[in-house]
Amino acid sequence: MRQVVMHGPGNVRVEDREDPKIVEPTDAIIRLSATCICGSDLWPYRGAEPVDHQVMGHEYVGVVEEVGSDVRNVKVGDFVVGSFWASDNTCEICQAGYQAYCVHRVLMGTIGTQSERARIPLADGTLVATPGMPDPDLIPSLMAASDVLGTGWFAAVAAQAGPGKTVAVVGDGAVGLLGILAARQLGAERIIAFSRHTDRQALAKEFGATDIVEERGDDGVARVKDLTDGLGAHSVIEAVGTQEAMMQAIHSTRPGGHVGFVGVSHDVAIPGDELFMAGVHIHGGPAPVRQYLPELVQLIWDRKIDPGKVFDLTLPLDRAAEGYRAMDQRTATKVLLTV
Amino acid sequence: MRQVVMHGPGNVRVEDREDPKIVEPTDAIIRLSATCICGSDLWPYRGAEPVDHQVMGHEYVGVVEEVGSDVRNVKVGDFVVGSFWASDNTCEICQAGYQAYCVHRVLMGTIGTQSERARIPLADGTLVATPGMPDPDLIPSLMAASDVLGTGWFAAVAAQAGPGKTVAVVGDGAVGLLGILAARQLGAERIIAFSRHTDRQALAKEFGATDIVEERGDDGVARVKDLTDGLGAHSVIEAVGTQEAMMQAIHSTRPGGHVGFVGVSHDVAIPGDELFMAGVHIHGGPAPVRQYLPELVQLIWDRKIDPGKVFDLTLPLDRAAEGYRAMDQRTATKVLLTV
Repeated sequence: MRQVVMHGPGNVRVEDREDPKIVEPTDAIIRLSATCICGSDLWPYRGAEPVDHQVMGHEYVGVVEEVGSDVRNVKVGDFVVGSFWASDNTCEICQAGYQAYCVHRVLMGTIGTQSERARIPLADGTLVATPGMPDPDLIPSLMAASDVLGTGWFAAVAAQAGPGKTVAVVGDGAVGLLGILAARQLGAERIIAFSRHTDRQALAKEFGATDIVEERGDDGVARVKDLTDGLGAHSVIEAVGTQEAMMQAIHSTRPGGHVGFVGVSHDVAIPGDELFMAGVHIHGGPAPVRQYLPELVQLIWDRKIDPGKVFDLTLPLDRAAEGYRAMDQRTATKVLLTV
Repeated sequence: MRQVVMHGPGNVRVEDREDPKIVEPTDAIIRLSATCICGSDLWPYRGAEPVDHQVMGHEYVGVVEEVGSDVRNVKVGDFVVGSFWASDNTCEICQAGYQAYCVHRVLMGTIGTQSERARIPLADGTLVATPGMPDPDLIPSLMAASDVLGTGWFAAVAAQAGPGKTVAVVGDGAVGLLGILAARQLGAERIIAFSRHTDRQALAKEFGATDIVEERGDDGVARVKDLTDGLGAHSVIEAVGTQEAMMQAIHSTRPGGHVGFVGVSHDVAIPGDELFMAGVHIHGGPAPVRQYLPELVQLIWDRKIDPGKVFDLTLPLDRAAEGYRAMDQRTATKVLLTV
């Protein structure tokens, strides 16, 4: 089968690799319908994380081709969506809604889903079948549910976005934009998007943003304060992962408010005294997407949300290198790879 | 009147100062029945915070002697308890339960309550009257409500201590010990106290601790994991304020669990990547004690809790310097000053 391999920073190739096989009786093999490139894939691409001949990709939708002898919840022929963490969905941590920390979790990035087929561990806990075979135009949105939508949703939940709340969103990448969509779905009254890119501002507004702030850092914080009677937002989503973004998020939040952070932290250190004086709640990390998948799949199936709009470039798997380049150069927000 | 002044690190004196006067029509003047020395008073005492001829103290109980023309909720003769932040209790932040961040807040430490009398700003919002004149043996517990009990209570609430939960408490000072009492009152199933002092261990158990862990740092974390099926505690209280204590708290918490931190942070920096991977909630800062005062005063009045037990040394105000020395040398956990 064809599979994306990153040989080193900036060096992405699509190669012939062996087809995956059932290893554990709880595994399933899927044939992918689509996969995509994640903002987090850019860290090794840019040399900010080590990489050496690594299979890539952790997002996936597709059709079940084979199941292990212990698999009960999905069957051959099902169209399925799963998260970037495989999880049993039965352990105490999963039952508490934190499937990204399942005691048996497997990181799908170590398996690599930018490929024609993939082995999915813990298939019963990991995969959610759609009500039937989806219309082709639903594929991008279902694909988004696998990570960026689920992650944006978690960020909005962690930030306690809801009725009567003012939500601010730091980061206008796919996750930030879908954090806006999530905040809107969760009933937020006002949504402030930090963005200085015209096209992303437009999508932010389409997803529910009511205000756009182009300033960053302290100036951005001051604008949010201006918009909130000097108090700050109730809920702030941090979807970048840098020091500036994290501090912008904390300082944009009113005392007692909530920061939901999902940007993969790189060289971030939160000063204890600033956190102490801010009086905010902070929660984040790898999103327990599995918790939200049944609800998100249904919203997409019922065409109530259209998160697939974050994909602004679609390429066949064999042209993955172009997709990485486009995201690295920010000529694309999010790249869908068809298989 | 007599009042404590810290001339410099380690140099505490009790001096004659002018009696306080009503300044704003929302002020009240109280004659203190008792005051106390806070763990945070040790930071300047030890030279870890700058100090130069500063009035000291922010905890107080006493009798109202005079009220400004706008004061409605308390009257001359009332026995009252207040928090270390004066607050209007009506602004949007107060109404959300975050009185320590009231838009009109006044830090009582700038007024100094280690004194015979004190001016209390925003008296209507700040002060809570007891149902009548308390029996003398209730004074220490009412005194504790002013800060250490309210702070421990907030930490337990921030850590979401409650039924079915395992709570771990980092710090065996007065706040940590009262965090144990609070967790017990909130219904926690199991309470793990980190402590290596025999007398504090005994009080921890009396307040509700079910397990004592003497190890610190990574060893302490490993012991908590051993006690919780490898998962970590649901709720962890951080009542110290150092880097080691904060990281011990974060790493002792299971994914999805809650850290409530109330130790005044000194040279703490939380690594973003560790926080990201831990998947915990963090919330803390100066406690909005005022939120809990009516409930805490009633529990004390009804003799359902006895937080005054944290005071293991009682001295008259004029001997305050001895009290500072005892707390600095850890021969006392918490010092009550009678006025």
